[in-house]
Formats: sequence, structure tokens, C-alpha cells
Amino acid sequence: METSHEFSTKTSDVSLQELKDRLAEFAKVRGWDQYHSPRNLLLALVGEVGELSEIFQWKGEVARGLPNWSPDDKERLEEELSDVLLYLVQLADVCGLDLGQAALSKIVKNAKKYPVVNQTSSYN
Amino acid sequence: METSHEFSTKTSDVSLQELKDRLAEFAKVRGWDQYHSPRNLLLALVGEVGELSEIFQWKGEVARGLPNWSPDDKERLEEELSDVLLYLVQLADVCGLDLGQAALSKIVKNAKKYPVVNQTSSYN
Amino acid sequence: METSHEFSTKTSDVSLQELKDRLAEFAKVRGWDQYHSPRNLLLALVGEVGELSEIFQWKGEVARGLPNWSPDDKERLEEELSDVLLYLVQLADVCGLDLGQAALSKIVKNAKKYPVVNQTSSYN
Amino acid sequence: METSHEFSTKTSDVSLQELKDRLAEFAKVRGWDQYHSPRNLLLALVGEVGELSEIFQWKGEVARGLPNWSPDDKERLEEELSDVLLYLVQLADVCGLDLGQAALSKIVKNAKKYPVVNQTSSYN
Repeated sequence: METSHEFSTKTSDVSLQELKDRLAEFAKVRGWDQYHSPRNLLLALVGEVGELSEIFQWKGEVARGLPNWSPDDKERLEEELSDVLLYLVQLADVCGLDLGQAALSKIVKNAKKYPVVNQTSSYN
Repeated sequence: METSHEFSTKTSDVSLQELKDRLAEFAKVRGWDQYHSPRNLLLALVGEVGELSEIFQWKGEVARGLPNWSPDDKERLEEELSDVLLYLVQLADVCGLDLGQAALSKIVKNAKKYPVVNQTSSYN
Repeated sequence: METSHEFSTKTSDVSLQELKDRLAEFAKVRGWDQYHSPRNLLLALVGEVGELSEIFQWKGEVARGLPNWSPDDKERLEEELSDVLLYLVQLADVCGLDLGQAALSKIVKNAKKYPVVNQTSSYN
Repeated sequence: METSHEFSTKTSDVSLQELKDRLAEFAKVRGWDQYHSPRNLLLALVGEVGELSEIFQWKGEVARGLPNWSPDDKERLEEELSDVLLYLVQLADVCGLDLGQAALSKIVKNAKKYPVVNQTSSYN
């Protein structure tokens, strides 16, 4: 039975926890969770990164904001970016890791590793 | 000047919008945004997917929950998963796309594409 | 005009030089070499690695020799392995590098880096 | 015992068969072949594609022939290209497939799929 949950979209901010919960339910009600071992999901992620790369492969440099892209091309890109994210969220989930907290911690770690140089004083 | 924002971690749920904003600020205060073209970020993402794969490469099948992994190995995995996510968020950002909404839409699209079969009745 | 060269297959050993020459001719007669910048070819390679990964993604561990694979699945795998190789050869070519010699040199370097332990004596 | 074979380099053309044989011997004498399952080698390949991508990630477009690259950067690129090739050769090998013949066949198939347009007459 399809749940109405799967067809709702929120206009507010989207959290990694929400994606994780939706994807776990999605897989469970379809009996797909049996295939979601870590390395299966990792290879599925690599497959989606490949599809994402194919969008960009013959374009040469691409400007920010994709000024000359058609709405169809942008939509395809949104789908491939999403596919990468969805497998990443599921991979973290089956590994028992909290992806959102891990990502915040990594930003903090990077901020310490690469301190901001006060560029004004550096010119004096 | 380092902002206190960069060093705070929330214990609540983490949103894609929050990650996007933090990363944009992180890059801007370091003058790194000039390097963040779509294809540069895409290749950086591929690089991180490679590092993620290296963690799993000689392990054979890996059980869910990573039962025999050391805390250090789990932490390294959290960092690589995060690195993939952080570049993915930035790639979507410089493309002008809303990754969170795109991901929700993709789940809805997948739910329609792969309807749940009522497995009880299918056995009758 | 199609050259007969493109349709010949040798039964003897295949060299990287031969593949490079054929691919350069293939691209030139079609006017495709204009698209073969290093980063375009690199992203095309990543795309093919993704397709290769998709073949393996839901299979769990796969035994050597692919004992239970259908001829069609094996042929598809041969095609994806080939696609990765063909883009790799072209990437090296447009970079002006000799892939075959580089590969031999890397084997030599690895042999020095990882010397063979005399396992007979190690059991005494 | 180290074989002299591992340390020889030929100046002539390098074949895929030769690389395959050397790598099989390399793994066997080190007892590494036990780790060379198809999916282990595939993930190792993905890892090397990641390292290859990292070389190009912050460079923007790169001109053919790498005109402004240092000898060290070119050598690093040769090594990463080689690592991708070496895992690809080993992956085909443990799958029992002939990579060289597969690649030739793929070129022939592509030549049929994308026939050369006689561009002179197409302008008349």
C-alpha cells in the first residue's frame, strides 16, 4: 500500500534526517532493503556520480548558474544530483552513521585546519 | 576573521539549507569561491567518492552497522561521506539548484515509478 | 569515408599504441577531436566507470570468472570495461603521455615499493 | 623471490596481454590474488579514478599537451593514469574477459554505430 507520506513535499527546509527516514520507509515497503548492503549502495552511488558526470562531459567549462541551459537540462541535473544524495544518505544509514552531524563536524574541522587569514592586515 | 558560526554544532536535525549557507560562507571568507566552478566542484566530488571507495576496497562484503570496524575506521568513513556531501551541496549551489527540494521531488517521482505491490494479495 | 581499418580485428595481442592510433583516427574522421579536451575526456571516463559500477551494484559479492553470468551480461561487461579503457587511452593521448610505458614503469615502481617476502623461509 | 621480469621495461609497444601477465604474476608472488575479487578490484579502480580527478579538480580547463604543467605534475598524472589502467586490466582478468579484444570489438561496433559522414558532399 502506498503511503501518502511518499507523495508529500514540504516547501520548508529539507533535513537529512527527513530524507533518511523517507528512504528507509521507501525501501522497506518495497522489500528493497535486503539489497541495501554498504557496498551495493556504494556502487549504486558511483553509478549515479557517473550519470552526473555525463551531463557535464562534453560541455567544456560551465558557468555558475548554468545561464544557457534549458529547463529540461536543469531538471535532469537536479535528478542526478538527487540520486547521488539519496544513495549517500542510504549508505550512511546502513552504516549506522549520522550524516548530518558528521557533515557539520567536518565543516568545523576544516575551519580549524584552514584558518581565515585576515587579508587586510596581510597587505600592511 | 573566523566567525563563531563556523565552530558551532547543533544537536538537532541538520538541513541542506544550513549546510549550503555554511559552506558558502566558508568559501567566501577564504576567497575560495573563485575556484568553485561547476566542473571543478564535480571533479572534487569524484575525488572524494574515490576516497570513500578506498575505505571499502579490500574488505569484501561489509555487514550493515559495520560491526567489526574500529572507531577510527568509522570516523574516517564519516569524514569521507561528509566530504562527498559537502561538495555535492556546493555543486548544487553554484548551479543555482535547490538540492533539498530536488531530492524530495525525486523520492516522489520514484514512488510513482515503482508503486508498492500489495504483497499479501499477490500471494492469493 | 569509412576506412577498412576501423572494421578489422586482429586475433593477436592488442597494444595500447594500436588502440591510441585507432581512436585518434576514429575521432579525427568524425570531427570529434575538437571535443576531446582533457577534462571532457576525464568526465566521460567517470561516466563509463559509473556504467561499469551499475553492472555490479546489486549483485553482492561476485565470484571470479563470473560463473553464473549470462553471455549477454558478460558482453555488456566487456563493453563497459572497453569504454573505460578507450577513454583512458584517449585521455593519456591528448595529455601527450605514453600510457603503455607509464604503466610498465608503475609496475616496476610498485615492485620496488612492495618487495616479495620469501615466504618459504618465513615459515622456518 | 623477486623476478627480473618485474624490473624490465621494453621500449617497444606495450600490450594488454603483457600487462595482464605481469600483474597476475605480481599479485601471485605476493599472495595478493586472494584479495582480487571483482568488486574489490572495481572499488580500487574507482579509488584511482578519484585520485586522477583530484589532479584536475582545481585547474579549470586544461589545454591539450599540458603546456604549463611541471615535469612532476606530469609524472604524477602518468602514475594515476597507470593505476586506473592496472586495476582495469586486473578486473577484466579476474572476470575471465579479454580486454584487448573487447576494446577492438567496441571500436568496430562504434564505427558502425557512428558512420563517417562525407562532409565534403554534405556541403553541396
